[in-house]
Amino acid sequence: MLSQSSSLFYSKMDMLSTSDHASVVSMNLFVALLCGCIVIGHLLEENRWMNESITALLIGLCTGVVILLISGGKSSHLLVFSEDLFFIYLLPPIIFNAGFQVKKKQFFRNFITIIMFGAIGTLGSFSVVSLGAMTIFKKMDIGSLELGDYLAIGAIFAATDSVCTLQVLNQDETPLLYSLVFGEGVVNDATSVVLFNAIQNFDLTNIDHRIAIQFSGNFLYLFFASTMLGAMTGLLSAYVIKKLYFGRHSTDREVALMMLMAYLSYMLAELFYLSGILTVFFCGIVMSHYTWHNVTESSRVTTKHAFATLSFVAEIFLFLYVGMDALDIEKWRFVSDSPGTSVAVSSILLGLLMVGRAAFVFPLSLLINFSKKSHSEKITFNQQIVIWWAGLMRGAVSMALAYNQFTRSGHTQLRGNAIMITSTITIVLFSTMVFGLLTKPLILFLLPHSKHFNSASTVSDLGSPKSLSLPLLDGGQDSEADMDNQDEAVNNRYEGTHNRTIARPGSLRMLLNAPTHTVHYYWRKFDDSFMRPVFGGRGFVPYVPGSPIEQNTDNLLDRT
Amino acid sequence: MLSQSSSLFYSKMDMLSTSDHASVVSMNLFVALLCGCIVIGHLLEENRWMNESITALLIGLCTGVVILLISGGKSSHLLVFSEDLFFIYLLPPIIFNAGFQVKKKQFFRNFITIIMFGAIGTLGSFSVVSLGAMTIFKKMDIGSLELGDYLAIGAIFAATDSVCTLQVLNQDETPLLYSLVFGEGVVNDATSVVLFNAIQNFDLTNIDHRIAIQFSGNFLYLFFASTMLGAMTGLLSAYVIKKLYFGRHSTDREVALMMLMAYLSYMLAELFYLSGILTVFFCGIVMSHYTWHNVTESSRVTTKHAFATLSFVAEIFLFLYVGMDALDIEKWRFVSDSPGTSVAVSSILLGLLMVGRAAFVFPLSLLINFSKKSHSEKITFNQQIVIWWAGLMRGAVSMALAYNQFTRSGHTQLRGNAIMITSTITIVLFSTMVFGLLTKPLILFLLPHSKHFNSASTVSDLGSPKSLSLPLLDGGQDSEADMDNQDEAVNNRYEGTHNRTIARPGSLRMLLNAPTHTVHYYWRKFDDSFMRPVFGGRGFVPYVPGSPIEQNTDNLLDRT
Repeated sequence: MLSQSSSLFYSKMDMLSTSDHASVVSMNLFVALLCGCIVIGHLLEENRWMNESITALLIGLCTGVVILLISGGKSSHLLVFSEDLFFIYLLPPIIFNAGFQVKKKQFFRNFITIIMFGAIGTLGSFSVVSLGAMTIFKKMDIGSLELGDYLAIGAIFAATDSVCTLQVLNQDETPLLYSLVFGEGVVNDATSVVLFNAIQNFDLTNIDHRIAIQFSGNFLYLFFASTMLGAMTGLLSAYVIKKLYFGRHSTDREVALMMLMAYLSYMLAELFYLSGILTVFFCGIVMSHYTWHNVTESSRVTTKHAFATLSFVAEIFLFLYVGMDALDIEKWRFVSDSPGTSVAVSSILLGLLMVGRAAFVFPLSLLINFSKKSHSEKITFNQQIVIWWAGLMRGAVSMALAYNQFTRSGHTQLRGNAIMITSTITIVLFSTMVFGLLTKPLILFLLPHSKHFNSASTVSDLGSPKSLSLPLLDGGQDSEADMDNQDEAVNNRYEGTHNRTIARPGSLRMLLNAPTHTVHYYWRKFDDSFMRPVFGGRGFVPYVPGSPIEQNTDNLLDRT
Repeated sequence: MLSQSSSLFYSKMDMLSTSDHASVVSMNLFVALLCGCIVIGHLLEENRWMNESITALLIGLCTGVVILLISGGKSSHLLVFSEDLFFIYLLPPIIFNAGFQVKKKQFFRNFITIIMFGAIGTLGSFSVVSLGAMTIFKKMDIGSLELGDYLAIGAIFAATDSVCTLQVLNQDETPLLYSLVFGEGVVNDATSVVLFNAIQNFDLTNIDHRIAIQFSGNFLYLFFASTMLGAMTGLLSAYVIKKLYFGRHSTDREVALMMLMAYLSYMLAELFYLSGILTVFFCGIVMSHYTWHNVTESSRVTTKHAFATLSFVAEIFLFLYVGMDALDIEKWRFVSDSPGTSVAVSSILLGLLMVGRAAFVFPLSLLINFSKKSHSEKITFNQQIVIWWAGLMRGAVSMALAYNQFTRSGHTQLRGNAIMITSTITIVLFSTMVFGLLTKPLILFLLPHSKHFNSASTVSDLGSPKSLSLPLLDGGQDSEADMDNQDEAVNNRYEGTHNRTIARPGSLRMLLNAPTHTVHYYWRKFDDSFMRPVFGGRGFVPYVPGSPIEQNTDNLLDRT
């Protein structure tokens, strides 16, 4: 999988060192633009419509226009888009951080629902878009596209980008909805990349029964092998750090080891032709569950924020880049003689992906609602619309996959390929900007009391707004809320009071009363009795701030 | 300066994506080796002889041998050494972190001494080595070397690597010695690179009076312009973060902005043909003095450790790399027919740099001792030997400069050049391993009570050994000790007691009684009355843990 992208590292050492002051100018401009995006994103934080992605995209577009004008229509970007850069440097930190910061309890509680949405839903969406594109495009004059191309189109547009929605959803009020959208987003990313690679690696000229089974087998193998590899690497890091007591000598070694092991898991997946995305995601989950609790408190704060920052910068980098790249003149040349076709293709694809998503979100939700007994756990129709909406945006993964399929190192000479690239750009821009801008108002309209809750909440004002604690469901009973509590505790340590509030006994009762969570229950028993003694981690012991147990653990870890 | 190195960023986007599974294997191996170095370094922490650099170098050498055997003598490295990689990705974090973590008070107190050692000393060393090499090598048969080459040799071997010594010196016991060795190391790095670039950019075929003056003017301009640029970027970051209150919304934005601004300062220096090293060093100093105090507590912990970790990984990467590269067969081919010459050249250069260093350390120390009134501030003869010894190691900067001067993208066909490359490798390996291994015993012999102090100290056991507080001189009176106190405080917050001890009033008295520190005194007044209100930062107010002032500041920053 994606092994071609890794050649970059080798080649860059090997190449000629040509003096090129222009590239220094580009880099300066790019870093300055990144800083600009962060500052503007901060200033627009309270704005009802905007978010960081749209800001970066707009700034990228504007810069593209300026460069286009300065260069006399020759070029619109500072750097040429490369899926190498994307898959080797930008994607791993984003996905790893997603796994590292995920609310594990919510994630695993709704694991089956998430997998249904993320894997089955993505496959459904992929089928609808592929079949639809195949049926419609064959009647249109858009150049030669093969079966593999159509399947690739399905995979490309199956990759959603739920960043916008997640920035709007309230984690405290609608934990179920939040975890569904978030979890689906991650599993979806992985699924579509795995799907895309499976398509690229298979000979699809003559499909028969045998190949279809082989394909499914390959897909399942990739899924499980990648997951296991990620978990293994994470556990290894936990074991090494616990066994050798790194905190004794130096915080930096712990942080360095966590970073390197996370990256190693990604590279190992590439080595074994697995899915690096899935691997690094599960490595992140395991690291936050075990490794993170074995390191000193300084390391905990550092890793939590350093990983989040890397992911944040990588995301802005991506959107800035996509914005700049969208205006690249070469791709539009083929399309300019038939603008109608391009608009038609983009509209058809957009329609297809809306239908394709609706075709699985509503039926699957119905199915899930049937299986739930308690009314509070059912997904309301308004929530279903939000879930559907959350998956309409397309982002950098789609772009990267499209470049991988339809260009050779960023260039294309075929009409059909050029149209596909421009359509992808159009859809990414349109969905991120138009759908993205409408997200906040839509959610406020569909889930109206979220605003009320927000202003009435006192708990959510304690931490930084980005890292809210989960008082209602994740209270203090489980380890997942730790990272946030950590943060709060550090920020509030001079206050003298620990503002840990509400509903702790309630969450325990809720957990024990729910018979559907037996898998989770057995996992916890297994974790407590076997995994924790070997790999460390806080596990699921009740967190009582200031209790002797807590103190002992911490003193032990910090060797104070 | 070094602008050629930045072309990498552009080219790597532009190049062909060739499938190359071998490079994935290389990367996996390299990352795994990095992890191995960290683990082994940790295990050898208490060892009397070893340190992280030597470990990495040895592991690199061993790997090189293994690769050499596997590849049948064709190649010894996983990646080809590139000064691009070095100057763009590895050096900036190392130097920035040096500035960020430097004990500012000690640094500025001994500023003149440090500048004398770092700048004048380096120039002296450069002259001795250049002249010596010119005189001796002209009589030997080592191929054609021009005047520029001889001057470059001087600059290459003027770049010291005091990492080994710093790992051994005790910051608490010999603050003066530590700050001298550390400060000299940084200023020396910058000076030699500036010197090297000045040599490369000047036409040296006919030197006259005018050119010499021009050269000095250029050198001074580079020095001051780079410093100013770094300070300006640092102040800008402090101003923006203070003015816009980033902590209000998100810790990640603060951390991201600090990282990006630091990197921007380096790239800006490249843009204006200045010294990126000096710029990023002073940017680090300014950021730790102002910006660091304007961010939330989580961000402070994160930046402190994240920057240290990046620097740490970059250093290990370098030594691992140098070790692997040392066995590269191509360079040794030219030398193999006349091994005697190569050994002779290496020995001569080693002798020259020992003489060159002695030629300024002892006279300069004498000069400094004359100017000091108090006996405790004088540099004893044993300390002078340690300072002399600390600068004998040569490291990655020398390697990178040698590659830059004597090869074209890592390859050379000229006999003289090949001999220079192999001699550099020999000297780096020999000095790091032999001198490096002898450092700990030598210092224990010359400064015998350092061991006693270490074991008797209770204060140094509180934080992690790598980030000791400075109880005797830097107590609590100044802001420099903050980063460490911070760390301690975070690690100890469950302990309930704040272990801040000894000698706080003493350090104030010491400061006020010393008339030679008036520059420092006026700077503090200026800082308090003008800089701090604009750019934030804690300045030099006494730190009283738990006092209302402290609480207010923190509450204000964290918006709790």
